[in-house]
Amino acid sequence: MNDAITAALRRAAGHQRRFDARFAAYFDSLTDPESGTLEIPPHGAFPARALELVRELSLRGGKRLRVALIHEAAGLVTGEFVPGLDEAAISIELLQTHGLIHDDIIDDSPVRRGGPSTYYAYRREFPDRPDTALALAVLAGDLAAFLSVRVLLTSDLPPARALAMAAVHAEAGAVTTAGQLLDLERDFHPAPGTELLHTVTEYKSTRYSVLAPLRLGLLAAGTDPAPYTDELRGYATALGIANQIHDDWLDLFGSPERLGKSPGSDIRSGRRSYVVRALSAAADESELNLLEDALGDPGCDDDTLDRIRRIARSHGIDRTLRADADRFARRAAGHAAAWRERWRPEAVAFLEHLPAWTVSRDH
Amino acid sequence: MNDAITAALRRAAGHQRRFDARFAAYFDSLTDPESGTLEIPPHGAFPARALELVRELSLRGGKRLRVALIHEAAGLVTGEFVPGLDEAAISIELLQTHGLIHDDIIDDSPVRRGGPSTYYAYRREFPDRPDTALALAVLAGDLAAFLSVRVLLTSDLPPARALAMAAVHAEAGAVTTAGQLLDLERDFHPAPGTELLHTVTEYKSTRYSVLAPLRLGLLAAGTDPAPYTDELRGYATALGIANQIHDDWLDLFGSPERLGKSPGSDIRSGRRSYVVRALSAAADESELNLLEDALGDPGCDDDTLDRIRRIARSHGIDRTLRADADRFARRAAGHAAAWRERWRPEAVAFLEHLPAWTVSRDH
Repeated sequence: MNDAITAALRRAAGHQRRFDARFAAYFDSLTDPESGTLEIPPHGAFPARALELVRELSLRGGKRLRVALIHEAAGLVTGEFVPGLDEAAISIELLQTHGLIHDDIIDDSPVRRGGPSTYYAYRREFPDRPDTALALAVLAGDLAAFLSVRVLLTSDLPPARALAMAAVHAEAGAVTTAGQLLDLERDFHPAPGTELLHTVTEYKSTRYSVLAPLRLGLLAAGTDPAPYTDELRGYATALGIANQIHDDWLDLFGSPERLGKSPGSDIRSGRRSYVVRALSAAADESELNLLEDALGDPGCDDDTLDRIRRIARSHGIDRTLRADADRFARRAAGHAAAWRERWRPEAVAFLEHLPAWTVSRDH
Repeated sequence: MNDAITAALRRAAGHQRRFDARFAAYFDSLTDPESGTLEIPPHGAFPARALELVRELSLRGGKRLRVALIHEAAGLVTGEFVPGLDEAAISIELLQTHGLIHDDIIDDSPVRRGGPSTYYAYRREFPDRPDTALALAVLAGDLAAFLSVRVLLTSDLPPARALAMAAVHAEAGAVTTAGQLLDLERDFHPAPGTELLHTVTEYKSTRYSVLAPLRLGLLAAGTDPAPYTDELRGYATALGIANQIHDDWLDLFGSPERLGKSPGSDIRSGRRSYVVRALSAAADESELNLLEDALGDPGCDDDTLDRIRRIARSHGIDRTLRADADRFARRAAGHAAAWRERWRPEAVAFLEHLPAWTVSRDH
């Protein structure tokens, strides 16, 4: 990994460390018995338990690239301390928590971020009442969504700024939900085209994970992002697609040790990923039959996966997908390179090198 | 029904008529091909279908008492046109839509507002894929939640005002979710006390259905509701409890023709309502056995319900609950009566007479 990427990663790790402490303090502030800002009903354990599960999942947070993007976007225009970045980061990470909780209901996923999904945490607490577990998980996800926008509405920011940031957030929430709906539809297509996959990626992931953080960081720093919409979106979309292609590649070709989950989960869950699409397009009839039998079969075994992996390699799909991911990463970096003239060099360098790191990570 | 109540109802009907047209125009504005404000992905039918179902459920709206409360709260302090009331009303009704969609998943309810619940609309569209129907309904509810806060963030209101209104809204969303969690917990109690039922009612219903509308109306009209928190909450809580006791009463004692659903749904779904609580407290052992067998039994037949109804009457529960509802309605009216000195008479009269109407309605 080259030095510039290492430097970018070190910056991201710094944002992550600071944020994780701040995020924990935010949850403390909600429920502090003296100064708690969230009114939890005076009776009962269920509301407090839901909040606890939202907290646990939120704090098992990984790399926090969204948080880094928010800080670096502000860093594009100022080197000063910028109020509101923490609120923006908490807000976007809670939006992520909301999405994960509901996603894990939708996908019936027991594991998330190396721990139980919220749904399965409840399934374990109510082993005889799966309907109650489902209900509680739906509500825990809803709670995360309301908290997520609330943190931007109860800050000390100037009202016009807070309002603009909350509007970016609500737009991201609505658009992401539309993307998740499209993601479900995608799996009804026997052969979704690349354009559809790009659109799913853009709406389901990129908007709230890249575009909204960039907008929030700029807004917090006092810069209206509207004049830069096309280039910000260009960067976000290319980075998001690079990231998704790489994720899909890792799911079949990545090392199980680094992945933190069994490979092949896309195939087992019938997800028409970039890899599956490329396979469907290249495979001959008998290969296609094997693939179609495996798709959506939770019991698909490692031997079958190995065969699919070999088929993919025989068609060069591992290499073409890596090349595709690299191409989109370079496209994103190209957008960021054009910002050197206008914006501050350190933050621009971070945004330039992030795409290359994204497509070289092994988990 | 006395003249004052009739006058209040006529005012509410006027608000409803105007609002329903405005609400339909709002949905048109989201998806207008020329000027649509919501970015729906360019591919696919699922996002548009979810929005359509959110629209259909939203527009089958009933009496719109929340909308009337928003307008009358503004009317407490001004007789002039108040910008932002429509946005507040759309926002609260979309929050309601969000809650209904997720509630109907939680309760597995096929019918809502005289039509299919969103969940069952999807179940009919995907008869062989109940998991897909569930996923789509979760996401449709999420979409309604994000749209709900978004409408307050994208208005032309002065930023400080819009921000304060959105904060009331997000708080109501979070508190209501906590109330729904407590509502689930309530049904785990073999004998929930009246205090717990009051708390569930306050958090699950009253905060977003009465208190938030009053605050939103005052805020839109330029009056900070903070100095009046206690009295507004006193009114809201009493009205909410009166309303809930009356609802629970109707569910056992109401006429099926007016109810629009089979009576006894609380018993069949195992809901520990005010009626069930009173029954549990008064019943002898054999009556209690009958009740406990019926609770949560979806197949509980009309004969059993008749027996439960007779047991309730033999203990005077129909009369004591009506008396309880009347008492809380009078308490609410008492709060409103104290506003005569401070606020405008027509709106005060509306708020004074609403509680009496609430506990006299037959559906």
